Amino acid sequence: MTLIVQKFGGTSVGTLERIEAIADKLVAFQRRGDSLVAVVSAMSGETNRLLALAHEIHSQPNPRELDVLLSTGEQVTIALLSIAIEKRGIPARSYTGSQVYIRTDSAHNKARIQEIDAKRIHDDLRQGRIVVVAGFQGADEKGNITTLGRGGSDTTAVALTAALEAGECQIYTDVDGVYTTDPRVVPEARRLARLTYEEMLELASLGAKVLQIRAVEFASKHHVPLRVLSSFEKGEGTLITSEVEGMEEPLISGIAFNIDEAKLTILGVPDKPGVAYHILGPVADANIGVDMIIQNVGRDGTTDFTFTVHRNDYLKALEILRESASTLGAREVRGDDKIAKISVVGVGMRSHAGIASTMFHTLAQEGINIQTISTSEIKISVVIEEKYLELGVRALHSAFELEKAPSRISSSL
Amino acid sequence: MTLIVQKFGGTSVGTLERIEAIADKLVAFQRRGDSLVAVVSAMSGETNRLLALAHEIHSQPNPRELDVLLSTGEQVTIALLSIAIEKRGIPARSYTGSQVYIRTDSAHNKARIQEIDAKRIHDDLRQGRIVVVAGFQGADEKGNITTLGRGGSDTTAVALTAALEAGECQIYTDVDGVYTTDPRVVPEARRLARLTYEEMLELASLGAKVLQIRAVEFASKHHVPLRVLSSFEKGEGTLITSEVEGMEEPLISGIAFNIDEAKLTILGVPDKPGVAYHILGPVADANIGVDMIIQNVGRDGTTDFTFTVHRNDYLKALEILRESASTLGAREVRGDDKIAKISVVGVGMRSHAGIASTMFHTLAQEGINIQTISTSEIKISVVIEEKYLELGVRALHSAFELEKAPSRISSSL
Repeated sequence: MTLIVQKFGGTSVGTLERIEAIADKLVAFQRRGDSLVAVVSAMSGETNRLLALAHEIHSQPNPRELDVLLSTGEQVTIALLSIAIEKRGIPARSYTGSQVYIRTDSAHNKARIQEIDAKRIHDDLRQGRIVVVAGFQGADEKGNITTLGRGGSDTTAVALTAALEAGECQIYTDVDGVYTTDPRVVPEARRLARLTYEEMLELASLGAKVLQIRAVEFASKHHVPLRVLSSFEKGEGTLITSEVEGMEEPLISGIAFNIDEAKLTILGVPDKPGVAYHILGPVADANIGVDMIIQNVGRDGTTDFTFTVHRNDYLKALEILRESASTLGAREVRGDDKIAKISVVGVGMRSHAGIASTMFHTLAQEGINIQTISTSEIKISVVIEEKYLELGVRALHSAFELEKAPSRISSSL
Repeated sequence: MTLIVQKFGGTSVGTLERIEAIADKLVAFQRRGDSLVAVVSAMSGETNRLLALAHEIHSQPNPRELDVLLSTGEQVTIALLSIAIEKRGIPARSYTGSQVYIRTDSAHNKARIQEIDAKRIHDDLRQGRIVVVAGFQGADEKGNITTLGRGGSDTTAVALTAALEAGECQIYTDVDGVYTTDPRVVPEARRLARLTYEEMLELASLGAKVLQIRAVEFASKHHVPLRVLSSFEKGEGTLITSEVEGMEEPLISGIAFNIDEAKLTILGVPDKPGVAYHILGPVADANIGVDMIIQNVGRDGTTDFTFTVHRNDYLKALEILRESASTLGAREVRGDDKIAKISVVGVGMRSHAGIASTMFHTLAQEGINIQTISTSEIKISVVIEEKYLELGVRALHSAFELEKAPSRISSSL
């Protein structure tokens, strides 16, 4: 008998028909002999409906009260799903976050889970019940209702898997797994059977929005095996774990990309300690998030500094940078909001040389100029002109042969 | 500084505009120097919407899960009202039933309040907050969410008033008080300034649906002064208390009536011990509620037995009674579902003779035949032909001079 935690997002529970379909699925697993804990989100649209009510009253509603309001969304789903399970002859029991002591800090609207008391759930499972838990919510030590912020249901599922010492955390979504790249850009894109947490983090943060970053971090920290599956289609999905022996280990797992960013460069800044802080400090103070940061070695006592921000913040960031430039005595400020970022991601590149050169060579062959380059241990990102995005992604997908299933490589780890 | 508990029903919080209007009202009271606890229901229609969702899945949803579902209705209202209060510059804090430890038994969908821990609310009030509590709900000793059944918000308000030792429990409704009878039938009907718990119980149970019976019982038991007021109009409403010295004490407080009932009579039943049980036992077993029960003294070794049921249960009750009649060897069964019940209610009749004769004389003068009579200490009820209902109510209202404000009677209590 395996204990499995299954998480169903808002689309998966978006209608009563879908809730009934999930009840069917859970009951089938239970009849097969598994023990089941389901974590559910609010029915799709419900959170937005509640938010709109609050905003109609107040443009900045009290965060504590907003959590009281929003947490009703999942509470409706847990009750309906439990009713649907019981209709099928299997006992079920629903719990809100506070009822199973999902203890969080007091940061309303973006709380973090600190502790979960698994005893109550284990008692129910022993009695043959399917347990249905509200995702996205908990309570602080004074019993105030908190929410984890959007997408927090994934984190609830992972945290429950860890606390219950369950075998696997299955995240049901509207896609059937994680792909080598976006199939809308590269029709040959292939579903990955396995992936490491690190790769998933790089792919998620770069735009393949399948899982919440915080949930993957949490899973990595607590060694919780995560599986991404489709709510609507059959299949094995993508299993995300630590790097383990015998695992298929391709050089490159996938290619992520986005066109949400804009690039800003300050040229000819006097090259002395603290320059990065003086450039990025005012940007951070204006609440503008920065993604890539690139600074090359200086020349003639000056240096050039480039960073990317979300396109929505581009004009504001440009203005701030121009002020900093005059303060710092920099030569020039340049900006470009017609850029695309492409990243190749894979733990394989740790031990295999030549990934970077293949990447750069491939782009060069297509006549695509690379504007900036930034690398991490398992990722190489380049910024190119926006119009070459699809051409670049397709060329790289083909160059790394991602359309082919990798042969297993026995690892000596 | 007075501590007041104010309860707002579903119609009073039915739209965001009405929620804002209640926030205005609460803030005005607070600025005047009162301490305030608001108890609110779900926005009108919401409970029915949630019930419909559950019933679409299952005709008999699990009662525990139904409570998880339905309790979200008030939770939405407490959050929205708190947000609206804070918008007006007064701090507010919302609580679900379980958060302020409204401890109930485990009878889901019809739980009874056992205990309330007032400490948390007192702490908030000391800090100048308006406290907003979800009506209708609580939690059992294991933390399972329970609901008190329809209208339970009144009971929550009364129980909180008792637990907090507040000065008054104000129930805001869509009427501006309790009337001597239904103003749609008797345009001269007058709002009562004061009323005793007992009178309110008789009037409420007989059809003047202003307050929940359980809430009035609870208020009576804990000596909580109850005031019924309009959410939409100004006015003093009706204050409901124990009978106290110096209180206005009319002979008759009001006239209640209904046409929801049907009458069944079994004639010529052998008059021996246990006969009432043998007649009503099978009716109760069929889950049919019985209102009036009338049995006169027997004659010739047999007796006649009459009772009333809800019209919806009439045919079923008739069938059961026919079976009982043949078992018991009774002579005949008669039924009539075209009846009306009129009751005159007043604590004054305890000490004043002649109320019954005035009532019967008045009806006789109008040519209205009385089919059955039943009395309690502060009430006389008669069953008449349905078509005479309005005529009877108007004649009695006039005969007891209910359109005139009573002169104060000094009591020697």
